[in-house]
Amino acid sequence: MATQSPPRSASAAAAAKPHLADSVEQPYFPDEPTGPIIRTEIPGPKSKEAIAELDKVFDTRSLNMMANYQNSFGNYIADLDGNVLLDVYAQIASIPVGYSNPSLLLAATSPDMASAIINRPALGNFPQHDWAQILETGILRVAPKGCDQVFTAQAGSDANELAYKAAFMWKRRQQRGGADIEFTAEEIESSMNNQSPGSPNMSILSFKTAFHGRLFGSLSTTRSKPIHKLDIPAFDWPQASFPALKYPLEQHVEENAREEARCLAEVEKLLTTYHNPPAAVIVEPIQSEGGDNHASPAFFKGLREVTRKHDVLLIVDEVQTGVGATGKFWAHEHWNLQDPPDMVTFSKKAQTAGYYFGNPELRPNKPYRQFNTWMGDPARALLFRAIINEIARLNLVHNTAETGDYLYAGLESLAQKYPGEIENLRGKGQGTFIAWDSPRRDEILKKGKGVGINIGGSGASAVRLRPMLIFQKRHADIFLEAMEKILKS
Amino acid sequence: MATQSPPRSASAAAAAKPHLADSVEQPYFPDEPTGPIIRTEIPGPKSKEAIAELDKVFDTRSLNMMANYQNSFGNYIADLDGNVLLDVYAQIASIPVGYSNPSLLLAATSPDMASAIINRPALGNFPQHDWAQILETGILRVAPKGCDQVFTAQAGSDANELAYKAAFMWKRRQQRGGADIEFTAEEIESSMNNQSPGSPNMSILSFKTAFHGRLFGSLSTTRSKPIHKLDIPAFDWPQASFPALKYPLEQHVEENAREEARCLAEVEKLLTTYHNPPAAVIVEPIQSEGGDNHASPAFFKGLREVTRKHDVLLIVDEVQTGVGATGKFWAHEHWNLQDPPDMVTFSKKAQTAGYYFGNPELRPNKPYRQFNTWMGDPARALLFRAIINEIARLNLVHNTAETGDYLYAGLESLAQKYPGEIENLRGKGQGTFIAWDSPRRDEILKKGKGVGINIGGSGASAVRLRPMLIFQKRHADIFLEAMEKILKS
Repeated sequence: MATQSPPRSASAAAAAKPHLADSVEQPYFPDEPTGPIIRTEIPGPKSKEAIAELDKVFDTRSLNMMANYQNSFGNYIADLDGNVLLDVYAQIASIPVGYSNPSLLLAATSPDMASAIINRPALGNFPQHDWAQILETGILRVAPKGCDQVFTAQAGSDANELAYKAAFMWKRRQQRGGADIEFTAEEIESSMNNQSPGSPNMSILSFKTAFHGRLFGSLSTTRSKPIHKLDIPAFDWPQASFPALKYPLEQHVEENAREEARCLAEVEKLLTTYHNPPAAVIVEPIQSEGGDNHASPAFFKGLREVTRKHDVLLIVDEVQTGVGATGKFWAHEHWNLQDPPDMVTFSKKAQTAGYYFGNPELRPNKPYRQFNTWMGDPARALLFRAIINEIARLNLVHNTAETGDYLYAGLESLAQKYPGEIENLRGKGQGTFIAWDSPRRDEILKKGKGVGINIGGSGASAVRLRPMLIFQKRHADIFLEAMEKILKS
Repeated sequence: MATQSPPRSASAAAAAKPHLADSVEQPYFPDEPTGPIIRTEIPGPKSKEAIAELDKVFDTRSLNMMANYQNSFGNYIADLDGNVLLDVYAQIASIPVGYSNPSLLLAATSPDMASAIINRPALGNFPQHDWAQILETGILRVAPKGCDQVFTAQAGSDANELAYKAAFMWKRRQQRGGADIEFTAEEIESSMNNQSPGSPNMSILSFKTAFHGRLFGSLSTTRSKPIHKLDIPAFDWPQASFPALKYPLEQHVEENAREEARCLAEVEKLLTTYHNPPAAVIVEPIQSEGGDNHASPAFFKGLREVTRKHDVLLIVDEVQTGVGATGKFWAHEHWNLQDPPDMVTFSKKAQTAGYYFGNPELRPNKPYRQFNTWMGDPARALLFRAIINEIARLNLVHNTAETGDYLYAGLESLAQKYPGEIENLRGKGQGTFIAWDSPRRDEILKKGKGVGINIGGSGASAVRLRPMLIFQKRHADIFLEAMEKILKS
């Protein structure tokens, strides 16, 4: 198909539909396109040419769309053929405050950034003089409650693996009886042969349908799809069931509570009986790749209790849920834990990565145990600081909460209007972190482009919404209208 | 100690010592400091204050020196107290063409760079329109012979792990009998439980004293120091002996040949008998972290033969040796292999990471098998392109070869003059990638700062030189003079 919708103003759309956004809502970026533009089928002729060229040197079989980012602005992603889509996938949930954000552009063109790019330090050995200040005015300003230290990394996968390493070192120190107990000769020798006790037969417990990354340790805890795991050696680590809640939640209260209790009992059993004993449990607040699976605050409180009871750490993987999209800066703030997680990992919208921790015992007892050449990237830490400032300036966490409620209500209406098309709608009160199951999911994702929407999936059958934090009611209106077009068709 | 050496011109030093550099050698950067400046002991009072501040939020026990990169230029690193050191460690071998390099600064302040920083794509799904061009005019321009494709990554550790994953997928495809053979139900199910056959009991063979990274898969192949490995679960993967050559090489020709044959026989035995069969062998051209251990081209040719014979892949880890320092762009070019390595990994001086490969069978048979959110970083790829251009403009690979010979000769003279202080001098003909063993290594590293030199160690007793590619004879003179001061003391 090759249709063309001229740009139109959001307020005109609002006027046409009384249930739509209040037309007095101020846009964050007055220069942002007012709507999608479809000029060609996607990929169009120029994109096809560029894809063929790229395929000679780079695997393009997972390519979704060839983008022109210089032409992308705010919530809108542009391609090479003049098409401009409303982007509710946002580089797999990684763009926080819009394409070509002017505040980030200022940070990206600062002398500090230039120096950080061309003089990348080995941070553990030769940190730059202002590293403490960069951390304190950036990454640590948004540190989750109870976690006042940070270990910086490169991406979500290695952030999780570094957290696992911290957990193993902590557990072995505890088993040894303290930080001042030296390694035995047997431990030293066996570690060099990859054998126990030096390389202990311990584990990290994760949940079925979880996603924690695709390196060898993180992949051993990832359980979302076989295509991620086939042919790759993995550690013999345990997995517990994650609650399979029924929707709407208010109609299945007791059943869902029983399901969560069942899963917690499974966790407890694995913690006490698994042959490779766990040092930690890792969990996503929302299983964001394996189907957008939610659980209640009570479940996570139970998980905190059972991990404390059996003296293992609780790692909360906020790689995808973190940084504002759920209506809180960190999704686990929704749980109101009295006793904070031991570690919280982050990446994606932070545009850098790492893990937060509070307990000084999670600093290994000797230097160079948790170390690598770069240990993060000051350039990306400067960018995260600018992102944090932009989130504060525009009050964007409040925005995702408000816009999320609005978007959810709109989807509820659509679900009623088109029965069977939007099932298990979930993410109520979780900002714009919304998903539903669709019997023809892949078709919907594909048709999205034709109506001007870039949208992604999660797990086998879920449509996952991951708009940026600057997604407003005006954008929700465009999105809902486009969805209705697809559902009608 | 608190001494102060005023800056002095390199040509004055050369005039004073007739064996020193030709005074007509042109400096690459006329504004570079002419020598080290020592104003305080290191760390000085301002650095101590900054370190104490940083320690509140970031582990500083591995801190070597708190740097001010805005004041660092060319081969010289500055600290907060006005000290300026000749840097022959270069962020653990990661700074290629000098601090605050003007050509890199131009690249870092370009509009393309700004867009790449603020619009970071999920490259596998939404590559930017000029990604092919960035690769072709950058990373792929220096692709090793026989490797015309690249998979980009973030750091050396994950570059190696992605290469391991490619090797496992390739081997299993071969065992299955082709790319079009579908996974069995048993494979699919067992992979989700981290069990064979879906998660096969296969391995990567590495060498004793090797270093390949510190994530769970890469750490399982790293065998340099127990402190890296203790308390971390590891895969049961095999290790072969790496040749322990005797120096000077010309006096131990037959003995060294026997040693290399012994190691190759060990490799062959492990390839054919290890209970978790290897899919690949990974090797560093020079074991750059575990002691600067070298082997001859004949050894590596033998390794290529034995891996072909037993149908496993050969991965050359050029994370530290790559990008010009050995007098070749890639260290494995010294071997003159007729049959290229299957994969070559890179990071550090490339300021980005990934692996090169040539065989189309190393592209997995389905999309999303080798995939992650970011899959590299266009900003860093743009920087690598600027680095490659700068290396070409200044003919820096030629420079490392020439300066390396000069530096090696100077160290040979010192070794003769101070018997027992410089042992097993190695790296002849390997550019500036030079090392030696010292009976009081740690003392020498420490004393280096007092005489204006920042220098690092390798393994238990080696001093490793890792100057930047812009290290010239004038810098070698300063270094040799400083070394002599230490040896005299």
